[in-house]
Amino acid sequence: MNSMELTSNDYRVETSARHVHLSQADFVTLFGADAKMENLKLLSVQGEFKSDKTVTIVGPKRSLERVAVLGPFRSQTQVEISVTDSYALGVKNVPTRLSGDLHGSAPVTLVGTAGTVQLSEGMIIALRHIHMNSADMQKYGLKHGQAISISVGTTRQATFHNVIVRESAVDFPTVHLDTDEANAVH
Amino acid sequence: MNSMELTSNDYRVETSARHVHLSQADFVTLFGADAKMENLKLLSVQGEFKSDKTVTIVGPKRSLERVAVLGPFRSQTQVEISVTDSYALGVKNVPTRLSGDLHGSAPVTLVGTAGTVQLSEGMIIALRHIHMNSADMQKYGLKHGQAISISVGTTRQATFHNVIVRESAVDFPTVHLDTDEANAVH
Repeated sequence: MNSMELTSNDYRVETSARHVHLSQADFVTLFGADAKMENLKLLSVQGEFKSDKTVTIVGPKRSLERVAVLGPFRSQTQVEISVTDSYALGVKNVPTRLSGDLHGSAPVTLVGTAGTVQLSEGMIIALRHIHMNSADMQKYGLKHGQAISISVGTTRQATFHNVIVRESAVDFPTVHLDTDEANAVH
Repeated sequence: MNSMELTSNDYRVETSARHVHLSQADFVTLFGADAKMENLKLLSVQGEFKSDKTVTIVGPKRSLERVAVLGPFRSQTQVEISVTDSYALGVKNVPTRLSGDLHGSAPVTLVGTAGTVQLSEGMIIALRHIHMNSADMQKYGLKHGQAISISVGTTRQATFHNVIVRESAVDFPTVHLDTDEANAVH
């Protein structure tokens, strides 16, 4: 099937505020060779966590400070912002991508306590997605990469389309919306 | 019918950034007895215009400056913000309302070039709505106050529900989304 609609009992909705995944090399540049990434809070996807570190995203118009750094390390640094954030930074043409799809994405400058990294690519607006374990994917007849529609809210209800199914280590289907999407519904 | 879906050829979508409608008395307090509200730009609803005046909305956390004042005067001052704006201001429990439905809405302080007004009510998050003239309402079989669903966007498409039909002097059906809603779709 091309698209299916789950009911709101079938998933939880979490808001992803702007955040950064760092490569180990960029972490060392930003926080120093002796720095350690501590786990402040486990996230819904098993193994992922909010760290004790934050960075500043520097834009041509203004900067966004205290942006959460998530762990563990990734092979390539990835910065996820909202459209509202892109206006605040003064950056145009930030592509909407799935996590990990960074080729040709927007350049970005990050500042940490020990240094700065200037990346030629790595900044995206995250395409809406739903994390789901393989048992739930089978239960709902869904495949990794498939687009579905999900409804959120009551007074300001919306149905979000093109929500991409991602096979992940989660205990329950988990929709990740960015702050613009989350603030548009309630 | 309870709800109907128009296709995207049937309406235009406009983004309403935060803005203020002023009573004449509040205008005089904010800008002085000799001030005039000049028409900078006509809006889609006949008779409404963006004026040459702006105000600052003062919140407990921070202020939002250069907020557009729309004309003409209204019987009661009305401030329309987004959920994102409410977080920036540090104001909780701003109700989602249709324009004009201000009883018990959020208090707000406005600052102009000549003075300040402190209102016990008047600030809302605008309920999504579609302005439509009576001929189009008849064409689509819709009534003033009816809730419909409309779809916006492609890559990040969403269907917004509970979009209230308002009979207005517009040449073409015009959906007004706030900045959160507009930034959640493209």
